[in-house]
Amino acid sequence: MINLISEIKRKKSAVVVGLDPRVDQLPKEIRDKHNLQSDPSATNIAAAIFDFNKGIIDAVADYVPAVKPQIAFYEVYGSAGYEAYEKTVKYASEKNLYVIGDVKRGDIGSTCDAYAKAHYEHIPTDAITVNAYLGEDGVKPFLKYTRSAGKGMFILVKTSNPSSGQLQDRKIDDVPVYVQMARLVKSWGDDFVDESGYTPVGAVVGATYPEELETLRKELPNAYFLIPGYGAQGGGGKDVVGGFNSDGLGALVNSSRGIIFAYEKNWGRLIRKRLEKQ
Amino acid sequence: MINLISEIKRKKSAVVVGLDPRVDQLPKEIRDKHNLQSDPSATNIAAAIFDFNKGIIDAVADYVPAVKPQIAFYEVYGSAGYEAYEKTVKYASEKNLYVIGDVKRGDIGSTCDAYAKAHYEHIPTDAITVNAYLGEDGVKPFLKYTRSAGKGMFILVKTSNPSSGQLQDRKIDDVPVYVQMARLVKSWGDDFVDESGYTPVGAVVGATYPEELETLRKELPNAYFLIPGYGAQGGGGKDVVGGFNSDGLGALVNSSRGIIFAYEKNWGRLIRKRLEKQ
Repeated sequence: MINLISEIKRKKSAVVVGLDPRVDQLPKEIRDKHNLQSDPSATNIAAAIFDFNKGIIDAVADYVPAVKPQIAFYEVYGSAGYEAYEKTVKYASEKNLYVIGDVKRGDIGSTCDAYAKAHYEHIPTDAITVNAYLGEDGVKPFLKYTRSAGKGMFILVKTSNPSSGQLQDRKIDDVPVYVQMARLVKSWGDDFVDESGYTPVGAVVGATYPEELETLRKELPNAYFLIPGYGAQGGGGKDVVGGFNSDGLGALVNSSRGIIFAYEKNWGRLIRKRLEKQ
Repeated sequence: MINLISEIKRKKSAVVVGLDPRVDQLPKEIRDKHNLQSDPSATNIAAAIFDFNKGIIDAVADYVPAVKPQIAFYEVYGSAGYEAYEKTVKYASEKNLYVIGDVKRGDIGSTCDAYAKAHYEHIPTDAITVNAYLGEDGVKPFLKYTRSAGKGMFILVKTSNPSSGQLQDRKIDDVPVYVQMARLVKSWGDDFVDESGYTPVGAVVGATYPEELETLRKELPNAYFLIPGYGAQGGGGKDVVGGFNSDGLGALVNSSRGIIFAYEKNWGRLIRKRLEKQ
């Protein structure tokens, strides 16, 4: 995780900016430039989205270590949207941002081989989100890229949404599924802990479940957490602090554009202090 | 499921042909036509793949009710591959095939809204595969399209791969996770059973686990099963029969191109007989 952590330390920030473009939220000047009023084709919308993303990336590149495009908001526009996703990843990567593709892929081994090629080679994302309902067959193809290419992954453990408990909170041998999943994540990732003290096999844990976040921090001391659910989904500043280790490392908090600077005033200051001590 | 079942009855077949193109398996004439030797660009490979798929679709359209492109094998070629996927779905749909997009998407609600628009509207797939590790939030956006647009889904229950048991076989209240997931599938799908007697909320159950297949058939009498794992992954002819109801309906068996006609000689004959009795 050297490549991510060096950016975190340099910028003294643990924020990952979500790039989840919605056409109705694009500013008027971008809408006009791409003729979305007269011709709202997928091609025009996709071009507008990439243009918009470039502006965000330029604005945040000096202040945050990472960005996270959510691929669903690009797939909506088919292959034109997919191209905007590819270009967004490449552009962010050129600006030295750590790019997390929020793709939540997960399948049998031969299929995950193809997903790994797609998202680690064809598209140069540094890490992707992974759904491990299928067990290690769907994780190993991604693991192959950790040592050889410095790639990472964040496996869904306890997700931020209201119904996540339907399966994730149920107990197997008195231990909730999200902890069982965390133990699998640990078993897959511990061999890959690098000189930073962290493994590239991380976990997704929602800001909306602060107690679970603290539990999981103890289960997975060497794993990086990707923490969504801050802000719009209801997670607050103090909810995310439990996701960090005492060195100020161990977690990235996802934020949409509007709240980056606001929340840096709150918990961001605490994490920055921890980072400065190093 | 009227649209799928009418095709199954008309063609007296329960086969879904997997469209999982691999560039090294394309025939020489297609490779030559698209200059893959001299210029193996993503654009050329994607064009070759679509060309190849058209040939398969033309060859099977009169004999099988459904096709299932696995999107990972298209994403490998980025936006060009994604376009080949879109075109493949549209072409198969024009040939009156029921098209199952094997995309295994699953996310929080707002993100699944976008995936539903992507795969039910922008791309006209009839059904997609869904991963419900996040619970009903990630399923409801797809459910909205069942009555209004006749769309369907197959939720991962017991997958065909060797490590599927790592989570799926573990027990919650003495009941394996795959049965717990089946009960969630039932709770989501039972309201949508249509005049065919089946709900568009189906399940993915691997041919490689015949006992689990029989158990799940009883748990989900009104759900359609998508059965992968036949052939290359080790599932045999008699393994899949337990996935069917006595009316010859209730299951689709995925097959790669080479084995379609071979296996129709075995279990296919039994299922055809059941279908003929109706």
